[in-house]
Amino acid sequence: MTTVTRTSRAIQLAARPNGLPALPDFRLIEEAVPDPAPGQVLIRNLYMSLDPGMLMQIGGYPEIPMPAFAIGEVISGGAIGEVVASADQHVPEGALVLHQHGWREYAIADADSVRVVDAQAYPSPSTYLGFGLVAYVGLTVVAGLREGETVLVSSAAGATGSLAGQLARLLGAGRVVGSVGSPRKARYVIDELGFDTAFDYHDQPLSDQFRAAAPEGVDVYFDNVGGAQLRAAIETMNVGGRIALCGALARQRAGGTPDGGPGDLLPVIAKRITLRGFTALDHLDLAPEFGRRLRQWLAEGSLRHAENVVDGLENAPQALLDLVRGRYTGKVVVRLTR
Amino acid sequence: MTTVTRTSRAIQLAARPNGLPALPDFRLIEEAVPDPAPGQVLIRNLYMSLDPGMLMQIGGYPEIPMPAFAIGEVISGGAIGEVVASADQHVPEGALVLHQHGWREYAIADADSVRVVDAQAYPSPSTYLGFGLVAYVGLTVVAGLREGETVLVSSAAGATGSLAGQLARLLGAGRVVGSVGSPRKARYVIDELGFDTAFDYHDQPLSDQFRAAAPEGVDVYFDNVGGAQLRAAIETMNVGGRIALCGALARQRAGGTPDGGPGDLLPVIAKRITLRGFTALDHLDLAPEFGRRLRQWLAEGSLRHAENVVDGLENAPQALLDLVRGRYTGKVVVRLTR
Repeated sequence: MTTVTRTSRAIQLAARPNGLPALPDFRLIEEAVPDPAPGQVLIRNLYMSLDPGMLMQIGGYPEIPMPAFAIGEVISGGAIGEVVASADQHVPEGALVLHQHGWREYAIADADSVRVVDAQAYPSPSTYLGFGLVAYVGLTVVAGLREGETVLVSSAAGATGSLAGQLARLLGAGRVVGSVGSPRKARYVIDELGFDTAFDYHDQPLSDQFRAAAPEGVDVYFDNVGGAQLRAAIETMNVGGRIALCGALARQRAGGTPDGGPGDLLPVIAKRITLRGFTALDHLDLAPEFGRRLRQWLAEGSLRHAENVVDGLENAPQALLDLVRGRYTGKVVVRLTR
Repeated sequence: MTTVTRTSRAIQLAARPNGLPALPDFRLIEEAVPDPAPGQVLIRNLYMSLDPGMLMQIGGYPEIPMPAFAIGEVISGGAIGEVVASADQHVPEGALVLHQHGWREYAIADADSVRVVDAQAYPSPSTYLGFGLVAYVGLTVVAGLREGETVLVSSAAGATGSLAGQLARLLGAGRVVGSVGSPRKARYVIDELGFDTAFDYHDQPLSDQFRAAAPEGVDVYFDNVGGAQLRAAIETMNVGGRIALCGALARQRAGGTPDGGPGDLLPVIAKRITLRGFTALDHLDLAPEFGRRLRQWLAEGSLRHAENVVDGLENAPQALLDLVRGRYTGKVVVRLTR
């Protein structure tokens, strides 16, 4: 029998949005938190990650393999927290753990569903939520980036894109190009992140923008967006180009309505292009290698991490909507202050 | 100075078709054939290959890297012939050579643009034009087929598809499914080629057809078609599935008009699918390995090669149109009888 010792605020899905979610689709609740059962841990969350990909489970996109969040279910997402009670010998009390039980202040989790991380490795625990293993995986094992190649990144001022562009340079790219959503963001990725050039994807025609930014063609496209930008990228790719398909922001911004995709794929055959969908979760074996290189780049000052910290669980839904609408540059995390 | 010694019939492109070509877009001519200059050979063609991919250069599809055939230019395509005069020490008179100078009876070619093949290896020289290195490459290095997996092949009764399905079985696939253009072809690939099942892609809805044929999902899709079938295949793919993009028959049948492509690629990300365009020409290093295995499979009687022989250069345009319209099963070659 478990004894109820605490309560925790959490955010439920209140209604299935028709299109982009709005604030009434979320509900702040207070729930009882039991003691951990054997094999479980109780986590006090410190920071949680906001990620446009969550909209797929919120909206119940039909073709994704992950189940939609149910109405009345507490939303899950990446988070980092401290173990405050443990009933598992492998995860001690006091451990800092990365897990997928966000959107609540306290979480009960199976010990084997959390990853213990080194509390000393980074300046803030929040850093673990934003330091782009996904960007590293996409550029290395997925796209096979080679010295001197031209890399194009979409949503380049975003959490993943801003790291993908910087990592591309550190991994030897010859030219790094960003597609962003405003002239201000274009200046940001050039001036602050060291991209060679950038353009506002609202300026048309898109394929002219892509070609002007990469006159010798694109070898690697790190795609966070899909849709019309993917089409333009394929037109601009060189023979043998690789596309790392990481995100579907075009569709998420459209409230889940499928976009037209890249259209006819004959150029993909004719130019022997590879498109590969991926997630960092399939490549956690690269985390130690990435961690080592990352700490060195940070120590050298050669990598910039832009983090937006939003205070308070109750502000998470609005921040997620702002994120999808392109109001941030860099990573967005929520600090759980209670 | 070269001395004109022979004339050769050849087929020129007479007009750029608007849509699918028609017979008046081709013109049979008689041209003078010079002696080979140093480094060249003179080839008497024996058989030439018909391939729907030729429509891309005939129609001048805008996004392909190969130049369109010019109006008045003799059309080129895969062919096999005998060297009747040589001005190059590496390619002797009498050699059997595979090359890209088809659609003419005699061809002058740079010696380094032809590949000398073993005249004794196969029952007929025509076999060299149809024995599917492309199918082998697509299943092995492109799609990474593993033991026990489910393989779906589109245009499965065609030259490449019929070999892809049979090779998939020989390479260890657990289930081999074919998409074809008629009930007769479905019976053919099941009864004659050993596919586990097949369906007529004209029956709708396509995604139901795909799912019913591969109830446990598709691991490898060998795509000769593109368009709506590619969309249905993506819906049916398992996590980690691979798609070898080999042909664009849907578009070629439509006279070059771009098809809608696979649509929204979110499922490709969510299921971590790889799509890869390829050509066998990038993988000629596999030809010796494939040749050895092929001869063994043929000796065992475990591989069936369906070949349609059309006699006479003058009949090539009509045969190409018939091929694109789906009137054949298996490979189509033209025998040059003069």
